[in-house]
Amino acid sequence: VTDLITALDTRDIPALRASLAEHSEAELADEMVRLDPVQQALVFRLLTKGHALGVFEKLEPVQQAELLEALRADETARIIEEIDPDDRARLLDEMPAGVATRLLERVSPGERRRTTVLLGYAPESAGRIMTPEYVSVRASTTAGRAIERIRRAGIDAETIYVVYVVDDTRRLVGVVSLKDLVLAEPDTPVAELMATDIVTATTDEDQEDVARRLADNDFLAIPVVDREQRLVGIVTVDDALDILEREDTEDVERIGGAAPLDRPYLAAGVLTVFRARIWWLFVLFVGLLFTSTVLRAFESSLEAVVALTFFIPLLIGTGGNAGSQTATTIIRAMAIGEVRLSDIARVVWKEMRVGLLLGGAMASLGVLLAIPLGRGADLAVVVGLAITSVVMLATFVGSILPLTLKRGGLDPAVVSAPFIATFVDGTGLLLYFTYAHLIMGI
Amino acid sequence: VTDLITALDTRDIPALRASLAEHSEAELADEMVRLDPVQQALVFRLLTKGHALGVFEKLEPVQQAELLEALRADETARIIEEIDPDDRARLLDEMPAGVATRLLERVSPGERRRTTVLLGYAPESAGRIMTPEYVSVRASTTAGRAIERIRRAGIDAETIYVVYVVDDTRRLVGVVSLKDLVLAEPDTPVAELMATDIVTATTDEDQEDVARRLADNDFLAIPVVDREQRLVGIVTVDDALDILEREDTEDVERIGGAAPLDRPYLAAGVLTVFRARIWWLFVLFVGLLFTSTVLRAFESSLEAVVALTFFIPLLIGTGGNAGSQTATTIIRAMAIGEVRLSDIARVVWKEMRVGLLLGGAMASLGVLLAIPLGRGADLAVVVGLAITSVVMLATFVGSILPLTLKRGGLDPAVVSAPFIATFVDGTGLLLYFTYAHLIMGI
Repeated sequence: VTDLITALDTRDIPALRASLAEHSEAELADEMVRLDPVQQALVFRLLTKGHALGVFEKLEPVQQAELLEALRADETARIIEEIDPDDRARLLDEMPAGVATRLLERVSPGERRRTTVLLGYAPESAGRIMTPEYVSVRASTTAGRAIERIRRAGIDAETIYVVYVVDDTRRLVGVVSLKDLVLAEPDTPVAELMATDIVTATTDEDQEDVARRLADNDFLAIPVVDREQRLVGIVTVDDALDILEREDTEDVERIGGAAPLDRPYLAAGVLTVFRARIWWLFVLFVGLLFTSTVLRAFESSLEAVVALTFFIPLLIGTGGNAGSQTATTIIRAMAIGEVRLSDIARVVWKEMRVGLLLGGAMASLGVLLAIPLGRGADLAVVVGLAITSVVMLATFVGSILPLTLKRGGLDPAVVSAPFIATFVDGTGLLLYFTYAHLIMGI
Repeated sequence: VTDLITALDTRDIPALRASLAEHSEAELADEMVRLDPVQQALVFRLLTKGHALGVFEKLEPVQQAELLEALRADETARIIEEIDPDDRARLLDEMPAGVATRLLERVSPGERRRTTVLLGYAPESAGRIMTPEYVSVRASTTAGRAIERIRRAGIDAETIYVVYVVDDTRRLVGVVSLKDLVLAEPDTPVAELMATDIVTATTDEDQEDVARRLADNDFLAIPVVDREQRLVGIVTVDDALDILEREDTEDVERIGGAAPLDRPYLAAGVLTVFRARIWWLFVLFVGLLFTSTVLRAFESSLEAVVALTFFIPLLIGTGGNAGSQTATTIIRAMAIGEVRLSDIARVVWKEMRVGLLLGGAMASLGVLLAIPLGRGADLAVVVGLAITSVVMLATFVGSILPLTLKRGGLDPAVVSAPFIATFVDGTGLLLYFTYAHLIMGI
C-alpha cells in the first residue's frame, strides 16, 4: 500500500481518501503499524465513523493506547464509549492507572459498570476477555419468541448466533444456535431444540486454554460461568483467534530465545527489541561460561591432542540441533493440547529411541570423518561415542524439560532452542573429554 | 481420561460406554491419538452415529485414513458418504490413489461430483479446502424470502450465518449475514441489507493466506471465487482455525530445525519422527563441517594460544542465540502478515542497530572475562571485537535470510534457529581467527 504512505508524505488528502477507500479495515489496521502516531491520527480522522471504529478494534491494545494519545480528548472519549466492554478492558489495561481511571470516568455509567466487572478478573483469565453481551432465554420460551428476543437485543449483542438458555437463578442449562431456531417451527419450545451437554469455561481459567477449547470444538462462542454455574459472559471465536495468534507468537518468540514483544514487531522500537533479547542472551551467556569452564579444565588434554578441538563444533552443534528439534516439537504439541503431563513416560520412551537412532546415524558420520585424520582409531571411537551420547542426552532433555516446567507451573516454551543447545553444549563437552580421558588416556 | 484407557484394556464395555458419554467429541478425538487402530475401531463402534461422525471429523486426515482401514467396508462407506465434501477431499488425499478411487466409486453420484471438483484444485489451495455448501440468493429477493431459503437449504449447508448474493451469471455481488436478515423487516430487499465491499479469496490462493485473511477480518466464512469472479465455494472459520493451527505447528517444527510431522506427535512412530529430523541434522552437520574446517585451518593459532579455544563456545553460542532470536521473530511476524517483503530495508536497519547494542553489551561481558585470564590485553580486544561482529552478523543474517527466502518462493521458516546458528558458527570463527591474526599476530 505504497500509495497510502506516499499520500501521507505529500499530505495529498484527496489521494489519501481514495487510498483509504480501497482497503478493508483489516488491511488499514495492518498499515497503521508502519505509521507514526501523528500520521495514524490523520488517517484515523479521514475514515468514516464506523470504519474508524472497525480499524481501531483491529489494533493491538498497545497500539490503541498510543493512538489515543495522539487524538483529541473528545475523539478519545467517543472511541472509549463505543468500543465493546471487553475491548475497553483490554485497552485500559495497557494504560497508566491514572489515565485509565480518568478515561473510565467519562464513560456512561452502564458501560463503566460492565467494564469494571471485567477488570475485576485476573489478567489473561476468561473473565477478563469475555463479553457480557449475549442473548439468553428461558427453556420454556418458543423458537419464534426467542428470535423475537434476538431481534430486540441483537444489535447490541456481540454475537447472536448462539443463544444461551438459563434458569431462574441464571444458571446455564442449555445452548441453542440461531440456525436451529430459524430452522424450527416458530412454536417449538426452546427446551426441545437446545443442547444440554454444554462445554463451558470458568471465569478464572487461562484465556489460552479457553480459546483452544473453543477452537477444538468448532464453536462460534463459548459460555463463561462463575463458580455457581451462573452465566456471566461469552468468549467469541474472533477474540479466540486473536488470543491464539498472540499466544502462538509469544511461544515462537520464547522458542527463539527471547522475551515476547508486547506489540507488533514493526511498531517496536530498537530499545524495546533490545530489552526483549538481552536478558536471555545474558542468561545463555552464563550457561556458555560453563562450557568455557569445561574447556579450561581440560586445557592439558587439548594441548596434548589439538585434533580433539576440531570435533567440538560438530559435537555441540549436533547435540544442540537435536535438542532444539525435540524441544520445539514437544512444546508445540503441548501448546495445542496434543501432549499432556500424563504422557511423559510415553514421550520420553519415544524420544530415547529416536535419540538412539539419530545419535547412531550422526556418530557414523563423525567416525567416518575422524578416521582419515590419521590421529588414531581411539579418537574415532571417542568422537562416535560422544556424538551418540550427546544426541541421546539432547532428545532426553528436550523432551523431559518442557513437561517438567509445565508441572512446575512455568511456560514450557521457556525451554527455547538456544537454552537446550547451551545446556547440551557444556554437558556434551564433559562427556567428550571424559571419553577421551578413559579411552585415549589424556 | 485414564478410565477410558483402563476400560479399553479390560474390555469393560459398560465402563467404556459410561466413559465415552462423559466426554465431548473434541476430547474423544484428542484421546484417539493415544489408542491403536483396533482400540480406535472399538471406541468408534460404541459411539452413537452422530457422535461418531463428529469425532471422525475432528481427527487429522492421516488419522482418519488409518481408522478407516480398521473398520469394515460398510462402516467405511457410510462415513465417506456422510462427511462434508471438503473433509472427504482432504481424507482421500491421504490415501493411496487406488484406495481413494475405489472409495469414491461407492459414494452417491452427487457427492462424488462435488468431491471430484474439489480434488481438481491444487493441494493446499483455497479451492481444495473450500466447501461447495453455502446459501446464495439474488439481490432482488427480500429478507423474509432469504430466511425461507435458508430454512429449506440450511440443513445441508455447512454454515448459514452468511448468505451470498449473486447475479444471473453467479458472480458475487454482495454478502449479507443471517443476523442482518433476522434483524430486518421481512419485506426489505436483500439489496438494501447486503455489504458490497466484499473480501474474497480465489480458488488458486494458498490456504494459509486465505485462513489468515478470514481471521484478520473477523469473518465466520470467506467466499471463494474463480477467475471470472463467480462464487464457487466458501471457507468457514472452523476450517480456517484448523489450517492456521496446522500451519503454525509446521512453522514451529521447521523453526526447531526439523521437517514437519504429517500427524499428531503421539500418533507418529519412532521411524516417522526419525525421518523428520535426520535430514536436517545431516544438512546442519555438513554446515558444521565448515566450522571444523575453519578450526583445522587455524590449528597453528590454536596451538600457539590455547586460551583462544576457551572463548569459542561463548562466541559461537552467543552468535547462534542472537541469530535464533532474530530469525524466529521475523519468521513469525512474516507468517502472521505483520512484516512483508517491502519492509526489508526497515527491518534490516532496525536489526543492525539492535545487533550493535546487543553485540556491544555481550562484548563487554566477554572482555571482562578475558582480562582476568592474564593472557594479555590483545586477547581481550580480539574477544570483544569478535563477539560484537558475530552478534551483528547474526541479527543481519537472521533478518535478511527469511525475507530473501520468501522472495525466492521458499518457506521462511526453513531458516531455523539451528540453521542460523550453524551459519554463524563458521563465519564467526573465521572472523575470530582473522582478528587474532591481525591483532595478536598468530
